[in-house]
Amino acid sequence: MSRITPLSGFPEWLPGPRAAELRVLDLLRETFELHGYASLETRAVEPLEQLLRKGETSQEVYLLRRLQADPSADSDDALGLHFDLTVPFARYVLENAGKLVFPFRRYQIQKVWRGERPQVGRYREFTQADIDVVDRGTLPGHYEAEMPLVLGEALDRLPIPPVTMLVNNRKLCEGFYRGLGLTDPAAARRAIDKLDKIGPSGVAALLAETAGANDAQAKACLSLAEIETTDLSFVDAVKALGIADPLLDEGLAEMVTLMETAREYRPGGVVACLKIARGLDYYTGMVYESRMAGFESAGSVCSGGRYDNLASSGSQTYPGVGISLGVSRLLGVLFGADAVAASRPVPTCVLVAVADDAARGAANRVAVELRARGIPTEVSPSADKFGKQIRFAERRGIPFVWFPGADGDEVKDIRSGDQGPADAAVWTPPADDLRQTVITRF
Amino acid sequence: MSRITPLSGFPEWLPGPRAAELRVLDLLRETFELHGYASLETRAVEPLEQLLRKGETSQEVYLLRRLQADPSADSDDALGLHFDLTVPFARYVLENAGKLVFPFRRYQIQKVWRGERPQVGRYREFTQADIDVVDRGTLPGHYEAEMPLVLGEALDRLPIPPVTMLVNNRKLCEGFYRGLGLTDPAAARRAIDKLDKIGPSGVAALLAETAGANDAQAKACLSLAEIETTDLSFVDAVKALGIADPLLDEGLAEMVTLMETAREYRPGGVVACLKIARGLDYYTGMVYESRMAGFESAGSVCSGGRYDNLASSGSQTYPGVGISLGVSRLLGVLFGADAVAASRPVPTCVLVAVADDAARGAANRVAVELRARGIPTEVSPSADKFGKQIRFAERRGIPFVWFPGADGDEVKDIRSGDQGPADAAVWTPPADDLRQTVITRF
Repeated sequence: MSRITPLSGFPEWLPGPRAAELRVLDLLRETFELHGYASLETRAVEPLEQLLRKGETSQEVYLLRRLQADPSADSDDALGLHFDLTVPFARYVLENAGKLVFPFRRYQIQKVWRGERPQVGRYREFTQADIDVVDRGTLPGHYEAEMPLVLGEALDRLPIPPVTMLVNNRKLCEGFYRGLGLTDPAAARRAIDKLDKIGPSGVAALLAETAGANDAQAKACLSLAEIETTDLSFVDAVKALGIADPLLDEGLAEMVTLMETAREYRPGGVVACLKIARGLDYYTGMVYESRMAGFESAGSVCSGGRYDNLASSGSQTYPGVGISLGVSRLLGVLFGADAVAASRPVPTCVLVAVADDAARGAANRVAVELRARGIPTEVSPSADKFGKQIRFAERRGIPFVWFPGADGDEVKDIRSGDQGPADAAVWTPPADDLRQTVITRF
Repeated sequence: MSRITPLSGFPEWLPGPRAAELRVLDLLRETFELHGYASLETRAVEPLEQLLRKGETSQEVYLLRRLQADPSADSDDALGLHFDLTVPFARYVLENAGKLVFPFRRYQIQKVWRGERPQVGRYREFTQADIDVVDRGTLPGHYEAEMPLVLGEALDRLPIPPVTMLVNNRKLCEGFYRGLGLTDPAAARRAIDKLDKIGPSGVAALLAETAGANDAQAKACLSLAEIETTDLSFVDAVKALGIADPLLDEGLAEMVTLMETAREYRPGGVVACLKIARGLDYYTGMVYESRMAGFESAGSVCSGGRYDNLASSGSQTYPGVGISLGVSRLLGVLFGADAVAASRPVPTCVLVAVADDAARGAANRVAVELRARGIPTEVSPSADKFGKQIRFAERRGIPFVWFPGADGDEVKDIRSGDQGPADAAVWTPPADDLRQTVITRF
């Protein structure tokens, strides 16, 4: 086997980090299901024309081709790997609309792929965890308040640093730009989206260039983007800028509803942050990003928003709202900083020692008994000297070694060296040792 | 959005079947972890040259190409989607050998892809669940006995009909063919592999044509393939055929060890079935298939074997043994026969009704209280008449509707119509209603 080298952008975890990831996925799932979100998985591929509906990400798609296929034959119905879970979900809703009950709530935890050029810190394959609510015709606004709270609750249960949810509203900003006299609000939004990258003066230049803003208009746009409050004072701050527009008022009202709900259920954990723009064109209401304490430079770990026009079939539209957590990205950052790890790399709690080859049967029976009571157990690979079997447990991270004996069994905690009599029918490890847990250092 | 049609070969489940699948995956994981298998995921793609090492599946590979890439530029380092989990695992072991402890045990539950032409019943994307043990240098034979027992234990816990594990041994067959005077045992094996498809006379013709077998040799090969026993009597049956060969004896001894272990831990559930051939060339010892009661025509739902030469690096080899469960295939068959279903399509146990828009806050607080005690709860999407809210719960499959009230709350079991006072701080649903369960009909 030649050329075994990692592929840039395709992260793979060792067993320890993978165990921590699994724990994170379990907690996400648990929270989502508590809120009534049903699990879904969609196929990895979509017709290329579906994937390109969003437009701007077309360069990132991986196309599929059968190795033996006639290269020209596939061109009509080209398939590509999905680059997010929203586009496939919208397609799934349309395809199964007759079999779903609306408003439909689902969570989806899957890999996505982006055909990026290899680049440090850029993943080409990664796991996302999404929740969305989609309705038929109209979607009540209270779901826009629900999203950052459900995901916030999930994040609060994870072994990660505190995450603040940042919210903004497309109507608010577009109404503001319009009230300001700008005729291309989308261009203004895209300029503001670059604020963290190119700074206020860069954005001002861009606003002039792409949105036709004069100095006063650019200054007003930047003033709006500066507003960030944990309470409802953003309303006065916006009004102080002196712009009037019905769409602005609508957006402000939606923000107030969300922030009032958030104040009750996640006090201080949801922030009105009026520079949040989101790149994607299809958002039409609330938009979400986030900030992880101590890891602000890593950028937003979850984001999303309301989309009224992503899925439609004839005259029927399916407005939705969703939020997406970049699990691989989040954990990549935390693993990289050694901030999160598994308590041990293996599920195994007990290694049953084997005195000699004839004793393997007896060792197996102990293992069966322990497993029947939910204790993860494996039997020593070989009948080496006990010292060697203990060292094997040590290297594998197994905390207990069990010695079957004719006159009764014994179990050793190999960390403390404590050893004593034990009965496989009743012995129980300390709760913290039963399963792998996650250790945090931040 | 145009052309929303299912893609042949890319199965997607509705929320109910997906919930049943999740339960199956949970039980598999639980069993594997009880036996000390660590979870792993490998990236979806491998370099094409890695994927083609197995040879015969080359026509089934999906190649990747970035949409915007220069078609000629990628040819040197072409990437393809993995078509199984064994090849990526072997690569992972070599890549991370310095960081793993051997024998290394892992389970892996992931999607795989095969670039088949669209065809009824052929999946092009499906989920597999694999366990493997890989060692450095030599792998003790007891792991070959472990595989069908661990997977058998997992299958026994699943909500599926009973599955019999079928085992055979490459050494046994190849020794037999060699002892018989056949010079190309692999050709003989490949002919026998077609027994269920083309029958004894077809196989006899194939044996003559591809393995140079005369009538007596072909007859002996078919006689060997007929042997199927639940106890150790296969040994006498083989010996009665009058062929002597050291490799045959070695294979027989390995089979005896496995069948003796199986008799203790899965009596009657492991069968010596000497026609099991497995298509893949890389197996070198025990091989496994399976048979599901009542669904025999669906073929083997899990299969695998020992491979001594799949992973090697310089002079170091990593022999392994593994078994793989085709989860999508298994469930596709059972869903198709309406034999397995979820008790309800949503996780939600309780819908909290909303009397009017002002009451949404109070409903939210009830939901928070129920969720805090682990009861999956959602709040009604709108303040419709209660009858309409109850019908919404009914259509969604939610068993309980909660009515917050100024003078105390009430809860209604909408299946029985029973309604009575309830306190969100203490009320508990019947255990069977708390979470989705799996219903079987077979």
